[in-house]
Amino acid sequence: MERLDTGTSTAHRPWTLRATRPEPEPLPEGHPLDWLDRAAEGRARAGLTRRTVPRSPSDDLLDLAGNDYLGLMRHPAVVAAAAESAHTWGAGAGGSRLVTGDTELHGELERELAEFHGSEAALVFSSGYAANLAMVTALVAPATEDVEPPLVVCDQYNHASLIDATRLAKASGARVAVFRHGDAEHAAELLRGGPGRRLLLSDTVFSVDGDLTDIRSLAGVARTHRAALLLDDAHGLGVVGPGGRGAVGGTPLGGADDVVVSVTLSKSLGSQGGAVLGSRRVIRHLVETARTFVFDTGLAPAAAGAALAALRVLRAEPERAEAARSRARELSEGLRERGLDASDPDAAVVSVLAPSPEEALAWRAACGKDGVRVGCFRPPSVPDGRSRLRLTARATLDNTDIRRVLDVITTNRPG
Amino acid sequence: MERLDTGTSTAHRPWTLRATRPEPEPLPEGHPLDWLDRAAEGRARAGLTRRTVPRSPSDDLLDLAGNDYLGLMRHPAVVAAAAESAHTWGAGAGGSRLVTGDTELHGELERELAEFHGSEAALVFSSGYAANLAMVTALVAPATEDVEPPLVVCDQYNHASLIDATRLAKASGARVAVFRHGDAEHAAELLRGGPGRRLLLSDTVFSVDGDLTDIRSLAGVARTHRAALLLDDAHGLGVVGPGGRGAVGGTPLGGADDVVVSVTLSKSLGSQGGAVLGSRRVIRHLVETARTFVFDTGLAPAAAGAALAALRVLRAEPERAEAARSRARELSEGLRERGLDASDPDAAVVSVLAPSPEEALAWRAACGKDGVRVGCFRPPSVPDGRSRLRLTARATLDNTDIRRVLDVITTNRPG
Repeated sequence: MERLDTGTSTAHRPWTLRATRPEPEPLPEGHPLDWLDRAAEGRARAGLTRRTVPRSPSDDLLDLAGNDYLGLMRHPAVVAAAAESAHTWGAGAGGSRLVTGDTELHGELERELAEFHGSEAALVFSSGYAANLAMVTALVAPATEDVEPPLVVCDQYNHASLIDATRLAKASGARVAVFRHGDAEHAAELLRGGPGRRLLLSDTVFSVDGDLTDIRSLAGVARTHRAALLLDDAHGLGVVGPGGRGAVGGTPLGGADDVVVSVTLSKSLGSQGGAVLGSRRVIRHLVETARTFVFDTGLAPAAAGAALAALRVLRAEPERAEAARSRARELSEGLRERGLDASDPDAAVVSVLAPSPEEALAWRAACGKDGVRVGCFRPPSVPDGRSRLRLTARATLDNTDIRRVLDVITTNRPG
Repeated sequence: MERLDTGTSTAHRPWTLRATRPEPEPLPEGHPLDWLDRAAEGRARAGLTRRTVPRSPSDDLLDLAGNDYLGLMRHPAVVAAAAESAHTWGAGAGGSRLVTGDTELHGELERELAEFHGSEAALVFSSGYAANLAMVTALVAPATEDVEPPLVVCDQYNHASLIDATRLAKASGARVAVFRHGDAEHAAELLRGGPGRRLLLSDTVFSVDGDLTDIRSLAGVARTHRAALLLDDAHGLGVVGPGGRGAVGGTPLGGADDVVVSVTLSKSLGSQGGAVLGSRRVIRHLVETARTFVFDTGLAPAAAGAALAALRVLRAEPERAEAARSRARELSEGLRERGLDASDPDAAVVSVLAPSPEEALAWRAACGKDGVRVGCFRPPSVPDGRSRLRLTARATLDNTDIRRVLDVITTNRPG
């Protein structure tokens, strides 16, 4: 429970549709949710209908759509740890970790994550989305000493969770500026000037194209302008860096106290949840103030235990990281040899351009019929004209799998 | 990935500290995160330091701090389902449910939740926080046909997740108005006027004091003003209503298509996650547009399986709901007989006023030393001057437990 002032507040942004409708008609009277049908029709007309397709336990599609980069989601040690943790600690955490939901298991996971990454401390959340909301909103939050609003400078292709976090930061008074994707010089321009606190915010590996941003340049820009550097390494952890330590883990930058990194437990670590890695004072600040930590139930013990077991498998078998990257390169090279417009992967994500959203969808469906599940990104997840298939490599794909994927994708190409 | 316009946008809200500092001093140069130490010192001076206290597996405190209202978190069938689901489906969902993270297990849980509640459909999220962000932002979202911004009218004591959701809605152009806690007439005043879409947003059972809001009046006001009614039933499901169906579950209002309800899987159902219950078109809209659904990894199978098993236990043993409420009333009555200022519980939450934040903290610590874990709410979670202990009853507490709790709390009262 929190208090809010009572009364009405008016939106800042002028209501954009007014300008195009100088003679506003009153909203049709009637049911308050009838507009949902018209919105659904609009999406259908634009070919943007989405639906869930439940897997069965006997599903035998070759999966190149998920984010289980290291093949640990079904690893016996990981699954056994999930089961054992539920037995030991219960099926849920039982409450906020500040109340009764904190267990020694959460602490153990946080210590090993921080050690693996080379950070002082870590804090685990119920999702990567929650971790990103926490990292950004708590570190942008107005401080008593501020005489100017903080400034958050963001890559234009940052993940949805970072964008929502930035919107919340803006709602609390921060200024937000967006730089052209991967353009550190543009970021520097935006950081220049103004006496307020500054934060630079970027994904490391971008989730759609799988490109790794130029972290060295971003870090240089951040230091020049005394900005804290906040990085989302969701698609880097377990795949890039020494032994899969991620985009900055295991490097001096990863342990620097002006750098804060978020990761997810639901991709390479095959479980659910997210974490923020940083200095002890950053983590302390999140524990005490981050709303998605304070006001959320702790991560379920099964998920915490599974992530910890997966981390230990990765430490014991660091070659999994390199294998995921190699398989991605092989997919990309094979697709290009076959004349397709595939991205050159920095991590384990390969994207393949499609002519249109409809054709991307049909292409994915045809691959599925041939036993290969791939992802498909369409607007609004990607810009218009950039609809694509998205393939994720997995350390455990063998040569037969790779050949089959290449054949199925090529055979079913549009046109 | 999503596109944002590049460039700088200025915060709407004038930076509040400027007014009080007409001659702004430049921020001390130096480390961009040094302000965190000063913020921590400020919290410490105000007696508002928070920390996590990890439980051990052999923890034998009598827990009245968690939200495991029905005692299902460690129920053998629930724990076994968590373990079995991890074995069957893997430790994680592996991706967004729109990509590859959807399983028949998620669908089974959603069907049984909807059926239990009397709604057409349900959608499961990785947390109740994520469910609330989805429900509000997706249903407030600007529609093409809108000529005026939507208006969201909120109880002033709504949960943090609803407040964050409202902030996001405001960032997308909605108007937000806040009514005095539980005051349906004030809500009606705020809903009056303006041709735009209207939504009325409230917790059912408020988490700190445990009071049930006057839903009949709110629903009347919503219908009069053609507003959709959005209710967060996190602390109602499993505790109030027929067989624990919640504040509106099992009633015509619970199945009405202008009413949308969010629940959590992490309290009465002893697991992790959240869900939104509503008409098929509402759920379809969330599947296609809610950012915390589209851009989040699906709920871990262990959590989905545990919640489903817990729901089945509740259906088989509906007396658990009444037991949780009875135990709460016994706690409240016993504390009042002993001269303490305890709330009269509508559900399973009892709050006991403390003279100050420091004394609330010391009181909780003393109870802990005597083997009883209770919660403690201090600013900013509650208003100044309303620091309190928070006790949660559980269906499985016996008479000896109740007597012990009453003795320990009374013996350790401040002053």
